[in-house]
Amino acid sequence: MKGFTELARPWTSVALLMMLATGPSLAQQSPGSPADTDPAKLGWMQGSPPPPDKRISFSNARLWPQSRWSFAYYRELTATARVSRGSESVAKLPVALREDLDAVTFLPLGRSEHMTWAEAVEAVYADAVLILHKGRIVQERYFGVMNADQPHIAMSVTKSYTGTLTEMLIADGLIDENAPVSRYVPELAASGFGDATVRQVLDMTTGLAYSEDYTDPNASVVKYAIASGLRPTPPGYDGPRAIYDYLPTIAKQGAHGEGFTYRTVNTEVLGWIIARVTGKRSHQVLSERIWSRLGAEHDADIVLDSAGTPAVGGGLNPTLRDMARFGEAMRLDGRFNGQQIIPAAVVARISAGASKEDFAKAGYKTLPGWSYKSQWWVSHNSHGAYMARGVHGQAIYIDPKAEMVIVRFASNPQAGNVNFDDISLPAYQAIAEQLMQN
Amino acid sequence: MKGFTELARPWTSVALLMMLATGPSLAQQSPGSPADTDPAKLGWMQGSPPPPDKRISFSNARLWPQSRWSFAYYRELTATARVSRGSESVAKLPVALREDLDAVTFLPLGRSEHMTWAEAVEAVYADAVLILHKGRIVQERYFGVMNADQPHIAMSVTKSYTGTLTEMLIADGLIDENAPVSRYVPELAASGFGDATVRQVLDMTTGLAYSEDYTDPNASVVKYAIASGLRPTPPGYDGPRAIYDYLPTIAKQGAHGEGFTYRTVNTEVLGWIIARVTGKRSHQVLSERIWSRLGAEHDADIVLDSAGTPAVGGGLNPTLRDMARFGEAMRLDGRFNGQQIIPAAVVARISAGASKEDFAKAGYKTLPGWSYKSQWWVSHNSHGAYMARGVHGQAIYIDPKAEMVIVRFASNPQAGNVNFDDISLPAYQAIAEQLMQN
Repeated sequence: MKGFTELARPWTSVALLMMLATGPSLAQQSPGSPADTDPAKLGWMQGSPPPPDKRISFSNARLWPQSRWSFAYYRELTATARVSRGSESVAKLPVALREDLDAVTFLPLGRSEHMTWAEAVEAVYADAVLILHKGRIVQERYFGVMNADQPHIAMSVTKSYTGTLTEMLIADGLIDENAPVSRYVPELAASGFGDATVRQVLDMTTGLAYSEDYTDPNASVVKYAIASGLRPTPPGYDGPRAIYDYLPTIAKQGAHGEGFTYRTVNTEVLGWIIARVTGKRSHQVLSERIWSRLGAEHDADIVLDSAGTPAVGGGLNPTLRDMARFGEAMRLDGRFNGQQIIPAAVVARISAGASKEDFAKAGYKTLPGWSYKSQWWVSHNSHGAYMARGVHGQAIYIDPKAEMVIVRFASNPQAGNVNFDDISLPAYQAIAEQLMQN
Repeated sequence: MKGFTELARPWTSVALLMMLATGPSLAQQSPGSPADTDPAKLGWMQGSPPPPDKRISFSNARLWPQSRWSFAYYRELTATARVSRGSESVAKLPVALREDLDAVTFLPLGRSEHMTWAEAVEAVYADAVLILHKGRIVQERYFGVMNADQPHIAMSVTKSYTGTLTEMLIADGLIDENAPVSRYVPELAASGFGDATVRQVLDMTTGLAYSEDYTDPNASVVKYAIASGLRPTPPGYDGPRAIYDYLPTIAKQGAHGEGFTYRTVNTEVLGWIIARVTGKRSHQVLSERIWSRLGAEHDADIVLDSAGTPAVGGGLNPTLRDMARFGEAMRLDGRFNGQQIIPAAVVARISAGASKEDFAKAGYKTLPGWSYKSQWWVSHNSHGAYMARGVHGQAIYIDPKAEMVIVRFASNPQAGNVNFDDISLPAYQAIAEQLMQN
């Protein structure tokens, strides 16, 4: 196996975590290899009590490399709600492990030297990875402090749950995708969201004065992270402390419906709409409609803001297997655990994707020809693959043609997946091809 | 059914909750009936977002009647850890509901008028109650904001889990019950615990300068509640903020082994010993040894202090059915879900109780002839009944002769169970007799 230094990306962009916690001062430092930053080896929170220099609290949880521990222990840092698994039996995932997958090779984008799957898993700082083929677990790996019954923050993979749920409520007629947001949330009438349609919010084609640039410490996303409860309130902070206090302050900029721009606040608006049309907290609806029907092994945790609103744009913490169950349900056109959980038409609509032209305007260099539909990233490749993606390497990769689902948790020092898509995407494709061969 | 006002206890003692949150000023006010303080009817945390006067946060969660909501939502107020259910199947509890139990009558202690079981359940401000007879659910009720997959804080019922776990580690030879505490926790050598034996800590016969008087706002238990993370740190507080910072400050007072005095800090010392002898966090040991083997429906939540230490003296939040599974495992001499979870000798040792003479010194007027053994309350009655008890009405009542387990969550405005034992205890006995008849 190649050494880490050969594989590592140039350390040129600052992780959202680090930026939020420390500002960009570490930008030029080396992050340390995955092995050097293994949270179990570093002894975070070991001992009774842990020595002061090994303690992690909400205030230092997002420092690097503490984040390699805290991504697995978010509920120990702040208030969370339970996304209940319900009371039913666990839907067992059959296991048929394969030894051939680690050695599968691929060519990273823009490189001249091949890597193996095992190298790719390490290079992205994966904390856990599971591959389902035809519904059977063919690989399941845990690293650092992770294990099968340990949840991990899914970051923006959360959005794909929220988007799917929204599509389900549209299919039920509870939400009109062509209605303006203000029909459901009058509090947003005067904001940039007021005249956007639900569909525009779902597909993130809203025009808003809001920046999600992870390399800018003054970006709107920092204010979002505080208001949503995803990061602690800094001393002296006088901005909004609850997500529903923050959303109405976001102004319009440009026009809606003219192109894709990734902004987490759109997802939080969906959560608000879900709560309004159901009269329930949105994570409760997620449990009733999806989580409790998947035969999940565990309740999931979701981060709350100071008013008890769940962070549906990035705050879900599931176990790896439970995330795999959701991916598998999507792959099977919504039918899993003996029941039609998600209408097949909803899955078809999502996996068909949206406008590639709208998407291209966002300029993702690693995602040519992709689109963004209902909070999912759609590749439009020959396998019909589509993804849920979260910063620092969280992923659900669904490849219908290969009958494969890959789920991954990671704690990459860099936030944007674009920084390691050159490894991840061809690696997924190579595994798919290997599984299709035998 | 009798009106509430007839049934209500005189409002003479101040709930721990209220005391911690507001001081004793509400002591003379009427608490309001169970129906009038129903948290669902009062609309706590309803709406998206909830209106400001209906919001509950950690800082006001222990006000009355907000506590009727917050006892079910502790994890939404502060950091908690997961006591994992593991990955195995749910051990289904068979259901054979009986309609005759609500009308069972009994005479409350010191009263001349009979009550029914249904009246008793309401009078104690029960949030949920479940009765198992021969392993089958014969009654299961949820009130207010509770339901089958909603956890509820178990308060000092938590201690009985911790005590049982300690006995299991003693049985395994990992802990010597006759060793001084300082052998396992040198940090406590200079404290009042230093020369106490593990057995004295387990049975709460330590002599300590520590008061658990819930009617005294300056009692040590307030400092405990802050240090353990069970209540928020008040502005200006400069005392210990972590339980392992607090325990070493407790001095000796009197002699060890001369009588029972109920002090939660003993249980926290057990948690520390468990962590030291296993090298794991104690809630992780609880999961491995007990929770993950019960076929639990849900992970449980446990409140953490600022250093990540679980509050093993009062911070566990299980669902009602999962608490029933534990009670049933105890009733069945430790064998449940197809396996011997707790050694039969451990159950026998606990249920046999300790010295009645030692217990009598504590002066519990509602518990004549009882004893306290390994964090369980033992009745020594003709049925061999024993209990886990938590403030405000949390209970596991195990009646081996009647083959009955009753589990109850409550949010009684009064802290001490002694304030409503006059109803609870004869009610349990009456149900036991009814079940034994047919």
